[in-house]
Amino acid sequence: MDFSSYLSGFTDGEGCFSVSFNLRSKFSTGIEVRPSFSISQHKRNLKLLNEIRDYFKAGGIRYSKRDGNYKYEVRSIKDLVQKVIPHFEKYPLKSNKLADFLIFKEVCGLIFTSRHLNKKYLVKIIAMSYKMNESGKRKYKEEDLLKFLTR
Amino acid sequence: MDFSSYLSGFTDGEGCFSVSFNLRSKFSTGIEVRPSFSISQHKRNLKLLNEIRDYFKAGGIRYSKRDGNYKYEVRSIKDLVQKVIPHFEKYPLKSNKLADFLIFKEVCGLIFTSRHLNKKYLVKIIAMSYKMNESGKRKYKEEDLLKFLTR
Repeated sequence: MDFSSYLSGFTDGEGCFSVSFNLRSKFSTGIEVRPSFSISQHKRNLKLLNEIRDYFKAGGIRYSKRDGNYKYEVRSIKDLVQKVIPHFEKYPLKSNKLADFLIFKEVCGLIFTSRHLNKKYLVKIIAMSYKMNESGKRKYKEEDLLKFLTR
Repeated sequence: MDFSSYLSGFTDGEGCFSVSFNLRSKFSTGIEVRPSFSISQHKRNLKLLNEIRDYFKAGGIRYSKRDGNYKYEVRSIKDLVQKVIPHFEKYPLKSNKLADFLIFKEVCGLIFTSRHLNKKYLVKIIAMSYKMNESGKRKYKEEDLLKFLTR
C-alpha cells in the first residue's frame, strides 16, 4: 500500500480546495483572501484525519458544530505551497477536482508572492477562485467583490 | 502514482459495498440475495469509472435516471470473490467503510459456496448484511425478511 497514492484517491472523493474572501477594513485592499485545503469526516474517521495531518506535517483538525463533523484543514500559505501542492503535483487527482486544484495552485502561487495585496492581481484572483467548486456556497457574489474593489 | 492504492483511497470516499434482498417466489428460499460493489459519479468523472472497470476487468457502468449519475457496479459473485475482494485485501480501506467490507467479504464467501440457498445460513447472511451501511435505505425491514423465512 502506498499512502501517498491512497491519499490522492481519498482526496478525489472527500477533499476540498477552496479560496474564500472576507471584507476587512484593516486590509489595504479591503478584502482578505483565504485559501484552504480541507477534508471533513465523521468522528469515526478521526484516526484517518490524524494520519493525513501526520503525513503532511501541516494543518489542524477541529470539530465543526455546524455539521457535527471533524475537519482537517491547512490554511497556512507556506504549508499549502511547500507541502500540500507538491503532493498533488506528484500524485495527481483523477476526478474533476483536478480542475479546482490547478486553479488553487495558481492562486496560491500569487498569494505566496504577495500579489493579492495589489488590487489589479486581486481582481484576477477573485475571478479565478470563483471558477472553483461552482456548486458551493459563497458569502459574497463575485460581482459584489469586484464592485467593492473598483469603487 | 500507484493506481491500486489510489483506488482504495477513492473507494473509501466514494465506494459502496452492499447486500440487498428481494422476495422472489421462484427462488427456493423465496429470497434473492444480491451483493454489489459500486461507485457512483457525475458524468464528468465517467473516464475515471472506465479506468476502474478496466483495472478490475469486471462489472459495468450504467446511467441512473434516479439521480442523474453514472454507476460502476460489480454484481457477479465470481468477479466479487476473485477480483474485487482480493484487491481490498491487498490494499486495505482505512475509513469506517473497512467494517462494511469485512462483512461483505464474509457474506460473499458464503454466497460463493451456495450457502445462501440454505435457510439456516440465509438467516445469518441477512443478520450480517443488515449491519452494513446502517444509514442506508432498505426495501424490507430485517425482521420482515426473517419472519418470511421462518413462516
